[in-house]
Amino acid sequence: MSYRAPADDHRFILEQVVNFNGVAATDRFTDATPDTASAILTEAARLCDEVIAPLNRNGDLTPARLENGVVRASPGYAEGYRAIAEGGWVGLAANPEFGGMGLPMALNTAVNEMLAGACLALQLKPLLTQGQIEALEHHASDELKALYLPKLISGQWSGTMNLTEPHAGSDVGALNSTAKPNDDGSYAVTGQKIFITWGDSDIVENVCHLVLARLPDGAPGTRGISLFMVPKYLPDANGNPGEANSLKVVSLEHKLGIHGSPTCVMQFDGAKGWLVGGPHKGMAAMFTMMNNARLGVGAQGVGVAEAALQQALQYAQDRVQGKTPEGVPGIIGHADVRRMLAESRAEVFAARAISLACAVAIDMGTATDDPAWKARAALLTPIAKAYGTDIGCKVADTGVQIHGGMGFIEETGAAQFLRDARITAIYEGTNGIQAMDLVGRKLMDGGEAALRMIAELEATASGARAAQPELAEDLWQAIEALRETTDSLLALEMNDRFAGAVPYLRGFALVLGSAFHLKAALAEASRLPLARVMIRRLLPEHQALFARSLQGAADFYALSPEAL
Amino acid sequence: MSYRAPADDHRFILEQVVNFNGVAATDRFTDATPDTASAILTEAARLCDEVIAPLNRNGDLTPARLENGVVRASPGYAEGYRAIAEGGWVGLAANPEFGGMGLPMALNTAVNEMLAGACLALQLKPLLTQGQIEALEHHASDELKALYLPKLISGQWSGTMNLTEPHAGSDVGALNSTAKPNDDGSYAVTGQKIFITWGDSDIVENVCHLVLARLPDGAPGTRGISLFMVPKYLPDANGNPGEANSLKVVSLEHKLGIHGSPTCVMQFDGAKGWLVGGPHKGMAAMFTMMNNARLGVGAQGVGVAEAALQQALQYAQDRVQGKTPEGVPGIIGHADVRRMLAESRAEVFAARAISLACAVAIDMGTATDDPAWKARAALLTPIAKAYGTDIGCKVADTGVQIHGGMGFIEETGAAQFLRDARITAIYEGTNGIQAMDLVGRKLMDGGEAALRMIAELEATASGARAAQPELAEDLWQAIEALRETTDSLLALEMNDRFAGAVPYLRGFALVLGSAFHLKAALAEASRLPLARVMIRRLLPEHQALFARSLQGAADFYALSPEAL
Repeated sequence: MSYRAPADDHRFILEQVVNFNGVAATDRFTDATPDTASAILTEAARLCDEVIAPLNRNGDLTPARLENGVVRASPGYAEGYRAIAEGGWVGLAANPEFGGMGLPMALNTAVNEMLAGACLALQLKPLLTQGQIEALEHHASDELKALYLPKLISGQWSGTMNLTEPHAGSDVGALNSTAKPNDDGSYAVTGQKIFITWGDSDIVENVCHLVLARLPDGAPGTRGISLFMVPKYLPDANGNPGEANSLKVVSLEHKLGIHGSPTCVMQFDGAKGWLVGGPHKGMAAMFTMMNNARLGVGAQGVGVAEAALQQALQYAQDRVQGKTPEGVPGIIGHADVRRMLAESRAEVFAARAISLACAVAIDMGTATDDPAWKARAALLTPIAKAYGTDIGCKVADTGVQIHGGMGFIEETGAAQFLRDARITAIYEGTNGIQAMDLVGRKLMDGGEAALRMIAELEATASGARAAQPELAEDLWQAIEALRETTDSLLALEMNDRFAGAVPYLRGFALVLGSAFHLKAALAEASRLPLARVMIRRLLPEHQALFARSLQGAADFYALSPEAL
Repeated sequence: MSYRAPADDHRFILEQVVNFNGVAATDRFTDATPDTASAILTEAARLCDEVIAPLNRNGDLTPARLENGVVRASPGYAEGYRAIAEGGWVGLAANPEFGGMGLPMALNTAVNEMLAGACLALQLKPLLTQGQIEALEHHASDELKALYLPKLISGQWSGTMNLTEPHAGSDVGALNSTAKPNDDGSYAVTGQKIFITWGDSDIVENVCHLVLARLPDGAPGTRGISLFMVPKYLPDANGNPGEANSLKVVSLEHKLGIHGSPTCVMQFDGAKGWLVGGPHKGMAAMFTMMNNARLGVGAQGVGVAEAALQQALQYAQDRVQGKTPEGVPGIIGHADVRRMLAESRAEVFAARAISLACAVAIDMGTATDDPAWKARAALLTPIAKAYGTDIGCKVADTGVQIHGGMGFIEETGAAQFLRDARITAIYEGTNGIQAMDLVGRKLMDGGEAALRMIAELEATASGARAAQPELAEDLWQAIEALRETTDSLLALEMNDRFAGAVPYLRGFALVLGSAFHLKAALAEASRLPLARVMIRRLLPEHQALFARSLQGAADFYALSPEAL
């Protein structure tokens, strides 16, 4: 069984569900015609199917390893990465001035999802580089841009994010790394960073580290953090990799999954770096990179779910076991197996549509500079990240279950999807932190962005009443519940909101996803059965979720650690 | 952080929640006085904490391996197993006539859960032996009993279950293994069996295989299957291991978890075996073994959940990250982390109580021969198995999430719980098959056993009205929903029931677990906060679950494989 990148589904969602045409109609994205978009998806899918997907097991079986200070990538990864870079995929959404294609984030997100489904461990490398490109585009000096962007966009060099330290994970502000001014305008960066994805490798000429550190006059906490570009090799006068910088990979982590992605402990010993953004403005720059990466990680979850589901579907058709009700061969004929497949497919579609809707909002914000679109993107980012990765883990887990005993045997590959997917719910801000972001920062506008989104969902439900009265009514009720819950949530103390954040986020995603399903069913009749599964089987959970989200924190604090 | 076996919680549940006193009051179990029970739990917990738990990482890091046809166990496992055997724990519930302690299954289940929490991979070995002991007690000839039971009960020999073949997993009746009569009353057993847990090892004198095979005149399907005892070494005149039998381990599987438990492909080439139970009566004998093992596997889920939760709790107290609302040190002070811990603890308690209630029903059935108790045990077995293992996976998964990035690093051990737990939802009948058993075979009585259980739950809710009116009312409503759903389910075609089986089982478990929580809260005020978390946060999901369980299969079959 081999992975088939779901270009058709992306095409359909972009055209019929999330109004990608609106993006293409802006001055900023005139190049993104339907034909171009379609060709991009087809081409990316071909790359995924033929070149990248065959590498996925290699990384798992032969993890990246540290050899004399250099990280040696898994077999075939160099060629795979080169194919991605040479196809221009790293710079799909990057500024054409520096070699990018300047295409919308919506297309980039679709391509990223397909690449992640093909080989998550490898796809992380271009994904992080994309985040770095965006951070530099927004915050770096012209000089830094000119020096780094062309090489990053072409994929000759790759980028990393250096945030985490042993005692500063979710609490970034607790970091201890320091940066001291040198005489030449650069800085000497010192500190240890952990969990640095693709912190080094032998498949690119240079690795560019964006490192968070504190200047001598930096305040404690996040307010006093600055961001530095710290390359592995200092660019020489011609912009080529020159002298080695004072940094090294100390060790690689032994992880549950994504074995092909080297996770490094990095040591910076007065390494030469250049300020990106102003002094003490590191968090702003980092957030540019992180928001991009959060949507990207959400799409990773969807991609792995897609791959896991495809494999499970194939297995369910091939594996014959017992008599099935309608004489369908294969265990797919059993109602419970079919339930698992159908519910998984419904959530994959929902998560994909949410992810692309978020990307469209980003594009519309970029193209129009309309704060309403920016607020929409900000609202959807934590939902796309958390829901996409939650269902990534869930569908991969269901994939193992559909395989039965074979799912537990590593040769099958089903277990790898589960192991690989698991990190996506953790990195780039755990899904708990995403949910807190949603009920905290993203409702700081008094719920304006959320309520505007809800009004649009209502319009979708109303518009479907004639064609699908029952589904439309179910959706309408759920939207009203979302509206009431959002209102009620706004009246709660912040910590009570936090206690209900995770169920609220999932409830929000179920409502969103159901609305997208209904749109899809109206656009294409063959999509109706799946919409029914989503709205009739999965959406009803929103009631319990919303009830939980409003119950406050007191019950939890009433439990002492001894009672836990 | 080291595992502390939860003997106190078991003691409390046995005494206050599941009426273990009723068991001790029967003639059959007069030995199981409160003092004895308490001492048993204390002693088993000590063994788990001091001897068994320290072996858990060994098996993961140094898996069992096949060396010249012999399976070499992981470091320390021989000593650990010896401690279990010498403590008499293999034969805790076995017939005293052959060296067993003759104690109730409720105590055995508690001990098994604690051992599984300490080291799942090792605990599988005595668990399977216990299943074999019970099958022999019920179905073997006196001669076979006299020869095998003392050695199995003492732990000198161990037992396996040989059901699965490459094309006969859930569909046992499809098996191809054959047995031909020899001249001496024995049989020549031939065939290949896969997924044979602890199919061999160097830590016991002899391995006794119970093998399903077809006699020459056996009908196709399950009706024509017989069960055979096929020892690795044929017992000599003195009952000691003699000549090697014609069987071998072909290979070991490379699995997601329980690396310390060798999963063997076994080849039988005319191996000498003896019939257990009558010709073609293999499935009946196998079900004895399997029902026992199903409850045992449910308890494994609970055990791993307990261990994973303990570790996550410790981490949440030790790990400081960000300011917490009430200034509690450690991330346990954050509402969302506390939510994860609290919900996990609530489900662990619920699953443990269900598991022990099932064991009590088995004991009452054994002691009284009352068909109502036997039906109760049969009803609760699939729930105990599926819910216990579902929450085993879920709590282990939440444990990883609480660890954040560290959860993905193997050294932490959090990921091992997740990998190990995952098999429990699959083996001994997948959880989908458990659910189908519940809505199919276990409702064949017209729902009598289920409705009798529901009536008891109603009595619990009624009895709690004075002390806890709100929780009692919530529980009452949920019980009525269970009653109505059960009635409605009985009116459905079987395949429509199957389509809703999994949500129905989880809904049933939530109601049961909530009732046990309320009982616990009435018995001990300190248990009230956890009961509130269960009933107010988790129980409400029953509505969506029951709604899903009644929607039939049509929506699923309306989805073609192409649309999946």
